[in-house]
Amino acid sequence: MKIAVDSELVAHYVDELAQYGAHGKSGVWRLVYSPEWVAAQGCVAGWCRDAGLDVRRDAVGSVWGRLEGTEGGRAFVTGSHIDSQTPGGRFDGVLGVIGAVVALRTLRETFGPPRRPIEAVSLCEEEGSRFPEASFWGSRAITGKIGPGDADEVVSADGETIADAMRSVGLDPALIDAARRDDIEAFIELHIEQGPLLEEAGLAVGVVNGITGLRHYMVEFVGRADHAGGRPMDTRLDPMPGVAEVITGVIEHARALGRPAVTTVGRMEVEPNLKAAVPGRVVFSVDARHPDREALSRLYDHHETLIRTVAKREGLSSSWKIVLEKEPRLSDPDLVTTIEEVARELKINSMTMHSGGVHDAQRMADVTKTAMIFVRSRGGRSHTPEEFTSTDDAVAGIILLAAALHRLAY
Amino acid sequence: MKIAVDSELVAHYVDELAQYGAHGKSGVWRLVYSPEWVAAQGCVAGWCRDAGLDVRRDAVGSVWGRLEGTEGGRAFVTGSHIDSQTPGGRFDGVLGVIGAVVALRTLRETFGPPRRPIEAVSLCEEEGSRFPEASFWGSRAITGKIGPGDADEVVSADGETIADAMRSVGLDPALIDAARRDDIEAFIELHIEQGPLLEEAGLAVGVVNGITGLRHYMVEFVGRADHAGGRPMDTRLDPMPGVAEVITGVIEHARALGRPAVTTVGRMEVEPNLKAAVPGRVVFSVDARHPDREALSRLYDHHETLIRTVAKREGLSSSWKIVLEKEPRLSDPDLVTTIEEVARELKINSMTMHSGGVHDAQRMADVTKTAMIFVRSRGGRSHTPEEFTSTDDAVAGIILLAAALHRLAY
Repeated sequence: MKIAVDSELVAHYVDELAQYGAHGKSGVWRLVYSPEWVAAQGCVAGWCRDAGLDVRRDAVGSVWGRLEGTEGGRAFVTGSHIDSQTPGGRFDGVLGVIGAVVALRTLRETFGPPRRPIEAVSLCEEEGSRFPEASFWGSRAITGKIGPGDADEVVSADGETIADAMRSVGLDPALIDAARRDDIEAFIELHIEQGPLLEEAGLAVGVVNGITGLRHYMVEFVGRADHAGGRPMDTRLDPMPGVAEVITGVIEHARALGRPAVTTVGRMEVEPNLKAAVPGRVVFSVDARHPDREALSRLYDHHETLIRTVAKREGLSSSWKIVLEKEPRLSDPDLVTTIEEVARELKINSMTMHSGGVHDAQRMADVTKTAMIFVRSRGGRSHTPEEFTSTDDAVAGIILLAAALHRLAY
Repeated sequence: MKIAVDSELVAHYVDELAQYGAHGKSGVWRLVYSPEWVAAQGCVAGWCRDAGLDVRRDAVGSVWGRLEGTEGGRAFVTGSHIDSQTPGGRFDGVLGVIGAVVALRTLRETFGPPRRPIEAVSLCEEEGSRFPEASFWGSRAITGKIGPGDADEVVSADGETIADAMRSVGLDPALIDAARRDDIEAFIELHIEQGPLLEEAGLAVGVVNGITGLRHYMVEFVGRADHAGGRPMDTRLDPMPGVAEVITGVIEHARALGRPAVTTVGRMEVEPNLKAAVPGRVVFSVDARHPDREALSRLYDHHETLIRTVAKREGLSSSWKIVLEKEPRLSDPDLVTTIEEVARELKINSMTMHSGGVHDAQRMADVTKTAMIFVRSRGGRSHTPEEFTSTDDAVAGIILLAAALHRLAY
């Protein structure tokens, strides 16, 4: 079997979509339900029509292109998202949407109609950049994880509800449940890696056998604000040294465990945040990830014990909230094996790896078998205008995706 | 010699001034050149007239009340400031102004005119709360440390120049130099302690033999922002662990040195400050203080070496700016001895101590002999609506101030 993907078309699609919400030289700022996002989804719909697919928009605005199967039955679905970080780059999510449309177009042009239906999808609000509580909005709608009234409670930083934002683009929040699907056989998501492992290994593509589990903790240490000159060290209740000790502890622990454990302290708020005042309160985030459920649980225990121990010794009050929690998700083993076999047959060198980032595939796993294909990202960068994936690497990933879908649906 | 201070008048003055810019139940929010500050200075001018003093407003708006001396000559000056933190309390600065007016009133009523002139002063913009670069504006004007054109370059957070703010209250920035004084024999500032040492010692008042030296460093660590899931620990350039190590190091060093060394990390900015992103850049402040010049210099060296060592090991680029620098200032030894002697004669128990905070007295030391009298502050609190000094403690400080001025000027 030989599959030829039009590399010029792929490069053109990347450039074309990057015009919608273009930010600076190479960046994108494209929030769900914004005019530029609506226009970009229109562009994707146009590509689907050009590819000979049946196009529809679902109840939350995700765009679907369907290639009907001669035997009907449950569908194989592939796709990702086109909403961005603020700003983000041209490839995160986007490459999975372009890959889906191009794969289906290539399959249809090369092999005609499949036995089983195949669909490309451009999902909405994966990042949660506009509505932080609405990340994975598109895949949550498909999997029935948006409850009645949820859309009225999800607000942007500006205080706008996602329900109002939906109405502004002609979607009725009361109909969200219509986006549910129970007829999906498998979901395969192509995505840039968001890390440097493929680059380190000198490989264009990877097969994802599982998605990391993670928690976001917001940890609060409360002491007492004081004058930085008048208050001796020995009578302070300064939260800062305790916070520093916890940061050092959680990061050194992940360093010592080695791959694939990662721990990040990315967010910090200090009160009153004055140069000449001992802080009274410090809040910081701890993002801890591991693809293995038990290792993850040990990681959380270690962090929580450290926080309690340090706060007690320093005489501070401490507390935390878990603001995000994702269980690790293994890919479907048969799906992974299929993609690995196809890669070997096509002589595409690949490695099997886990995903350190969370993806729509993690949500889709609630209702269907999933797997992912990773494509090398230069320098392992993502969520930045600097992210870059070569057309050759993108094409390698799309060929692998198309070949896997051919194996499954033809 | 017996000096009786009217404690009801002191309590009344504290309450009266707290009405101007009252904030919440016990706080004050009174920015230089604001309507409430202008009104409060007017109130102080009224007190001075009631005390029988000659009142004038100088070129930057500080209010002076003068008790002429029968023999003339260089003046003894006492006072502090009435601008506040945002919000601040009712005592920081204010008590030194009230103490000055009440001391002069008491001396005049009890002993008549002095041999040498004595003046009370209510200085402007000590805190720098409205114009951060203009802290000590009043004492800098007196000591000739405001250059031509400076007033046009000092801006508030809102972008307003202090020159415009001065004009709005009828002051001409071109005339600032007229505020200079070269005829001051000594400056004695009464102030709340801003720390807990008097409370720990069970004493109402302290005699300040020196003001701390300090530097404010803004330290920058730059690494590389990355995806918190995709980037393994071993290939990160995360500034956060290095920053945490430096924070721990500088604070533990001051703890180990013990009193009077203090080091504070009060301000911190993280970029991009997202839970799921390895930071690319962290900026934090280091406030280091010691009243001894050589100990201070060793403190700075230790901090700078630590920053360099940690940044190098972590592969980060680091830099710092010194955004504020104050040399330690010893009080005039004769003045300290005079105040100590007077305290003994009056049977006011006191301790001799350094000031960990900076004060107008530090600037006034450029042109005259200085000393300070500290009054106990409950819990060592300051720069907060919760700061509190009892009327009894305030009166003890004012009696000591009045007696010292009597010894010097009568």
